[in-house]
Amino acid sequence: MRLGIDIGGTKTDAVAVDESGALAERIRLPTGFGHAAVVETAVAAVSRLGELTGLAPGGFQSIGVGIPGMVDATSGHVAHAVNLGLDRLELGGMLAGRLGVGVRVENDVKAAALGASHLLGLTGTVAFLNLGTGMAAGIVVDGRLWRGSTGIAGEIGHLPVDPDGPLCACGQRGCLETLASGSGIARQWPTDDPFPVRALYAAAERGDPAARAIAARLAVGIAAAVRVLVLTVDPATVVIGGGLSHLGERLLGEVHEVLHDWERTSPFLASLDLPGRVRLVPEGSPVAALGAALVGEN
Amino acid sequence: MRLGIDIGGTKTDAVAVDESGALAERIRLPTGFGHAAVVETAVAAVSRLGELTGLAPGGFQSIGVGIPGMVDATSGHVAHAVNLGLDRLELGGMLAGRLGVGVRVENDVKAAALGASHLLGLTGTVAFLNLGTGMAAGIVVDGRLWRGSTGIAGEIGHLPVDPDGPLCACGQRGCLETLASGSGIARQWPTDDPFPVRALYAAAERGDPAARAIAARLAVGIAAAVRVLVLTVDPATVVIGGGLSHLGERLLGEVHEVLHDWERTSPFLASLDLPGRVRLVPEGSPVAALGAALVGEN
Repeated sequence: MRLGIDIGGTKTDAVAVDESGALAERIRLPTGFGHAAVVETAVAAVSRLGELTGLAPGGFQSIGVGIPGMVDATSGHVAHAVNLGLDRLELGGMLAGRLGVGVRVENDVKAAALGASHLLGLTGTVAFLNLGTGMAAGIVVDGRLWRGSTGIAGEIGHLPVDPDGPLCACGQRGCLETLASGSGIARQWPTDDPFPVRALYAAAERGDPAARAIAARLAVGIAAAVRVLVLTVDPATVVIGGGLSHLGERLLGEVHEVLHDWERTSPFLASLDLPGRVRLVPEGSPVAALGAALVGEN
Repeated sequence: MRLGIDIGGTKTDAVAVDESGALAERIRLPTGFGHAAVVETAVAAVSRLGELTGLAPGGFQSIGVGIPGMVDATSGHVAHAVNLGLDRLELGGMLAGRLGVGVRVENDVKAAALGASHLLGLTGTVAFLNLGTGMAAGIVVDGRLWRGSTGIAGEIGHLPVDPDGPLCACGQRGCLETLASGSGIARQWPTDDPFPVRALYAAAERGDPAARAIAARLAVGIAAAVRVLVLTVDPATVVIGGGLSHLGERLLGEVHEVLHDWERTSPFLASLDLPGRVRLVPEGSPVAALGAALVGEN
C-alpha cells in the first residue's frame, strides 16, 4: 500500500493506493496555514489513513506529498508556497523526522500529471495542463515524470503570446497565464462570488459583453497552451485539470471551437489534430494525491 | 565505422565516423534535384566514402541519411522536401535496394540535433535550434532523439507570438518563423545578394533604419524561441545552428542582449539563466551528417 497527500490552499486530500494502483482509501482534511500547521496536516493525514488501513507509517511502501510552490524533489525542500503561508520549508526532512520514514515531496501540478496519466491509463507522452490560480503543465513520459534539466519543464504559463497584452506578475506582458488562469480571470472580472469563474460564465450567458470577451479570451488562452505543448513535447493527450476544469464540458466545447476555427485557416494546425488530443480530468478525482502516492515509484 | 549523409538543398555532406564517435572521413558533393538525382547523390556519397575507407556498403556498421521535409523514421519515407524537388519518396527503401543494406532516414534538423549534442559532448536534455529557411528545433535527451508522440516535437517555428504579426505560410499570424528564419528575413528584406542575412546585417551596420529594425526582430525572435524551449522541455543547453548561425558571435551577442534586457524586467526569467544556456554550433562542423551516422545507434 502506498500513501499520497495533496496539500492544497484550503483542503488536503490524502489517499491509500493498493498494489494494483487502485484507490483503497480516501480522506479530506482542512489545510492548516503556516509551517507548523502544514506539517501537522500531513501528519494527521498519515495517522488517519493509518487507522483506516491498519498500517503504521513504516508499513506503507512509500509516502509522497504534492504541494504548490517550488519543490526540490531530491531534497524535499519547498519554497514560495504563498497560499500556504510557506516561504521556505524542509518539508521532506521534517515529515521524515515526525513519521520515522522517508517522505517524497513533489510539486502538486507534477504529482497531478502523474496521477491523471495513471488514472486514465495513458501511455507514451502525456501533458497535464493545470488551470488553477496560475497556469502550468506537468509532463509524463512512459509513466514517469519529466522534469527537464532544472525542474521547470512545463512552466508554460509564463510564455507571452501578445506583446501588447496585460502585465503579468512575472514581469512580462501577455503571458498565457494572464488569459487562462484563476488569477488572470480575477484581474479582469473582480467579484465577491466564491466561484469567480462560474460567476463570469453566468454573466456571459446573460449576455454581458465584457464577460463574454473574457470567457472568449480564456478559451483562446487554453487553446494556445495546447498548441504550445503539442509543438514542443508533442503529447498524444493533453489532460485539462485544476480549478477551472470544473467548468467541464462547456469549457472543453469552447476550447474545441477555437481549435477548429484555427484549423480552418491553417492546414498545418489541422494536420496536428489538436482537438482530438484534449480531454478533461475526471471530475472529483484526487489526481494530485494519487500522483503523490506514485511519485518516485518508477 | 558508421556512415552519415546530410542531403541539403544545394550540397550533400557525408562522413565516416569511427568506433569512438570521431570523424574519420568527410566529403562534400553537389545535391542533384528530383527523386532520381537525390538517390544517386546518396549512392555516390556511399561509394566515395567506401573508396576512402576501403569498406563496401555492408562493411559499415550503419548508414544513415538526414534530409529536409517530413520524414517517417520507421519507414524511411520522405515527403514535402520542396527544395530537393521531392514530393514523396521511399528514400529508405530505394537506398536499401541500391546498396544492399538497410539505411536509416531522419529529418535533417533532428539529425543535426543528435550530431551537435554528440560533437559538443552534451548530456541530459539538449535543444538544437535550427535557423535555416524555416525555424525548428530538435531535442535530444540522454543522447537519444526525442520525437514526441507524432514526430512533431520541437516544431516551434509555428508558434505565434504576436496576434498582429505578419501572415505565416502555415496560415497563422506572427509565428516565430516570420521573425527568425531565412524565409522570414527574405520577406522583410528582398535582395539579390547570395547571402541575404549578411546583406541585411551590413545594411544595419551602415545605419539603415529598416535593416536595423529587421535585425532587432531577428534577435527577439531567437530569444523568444529559446524561452519557449526552456519553459517546455527545459534543456540545459540550446545550441543555435542552421544557415543564420553563420552570423556567429555577433548574432549570439544580440540574442544575449535581448535576454539580459528581459531579465531586468522579469525576476522570473532571470531565475532561469537563459543567456547561460545558449551557444552556437561550431562553425563548419558537419553536425547533420554526423548525427545521421549516429541515428538509431541508441
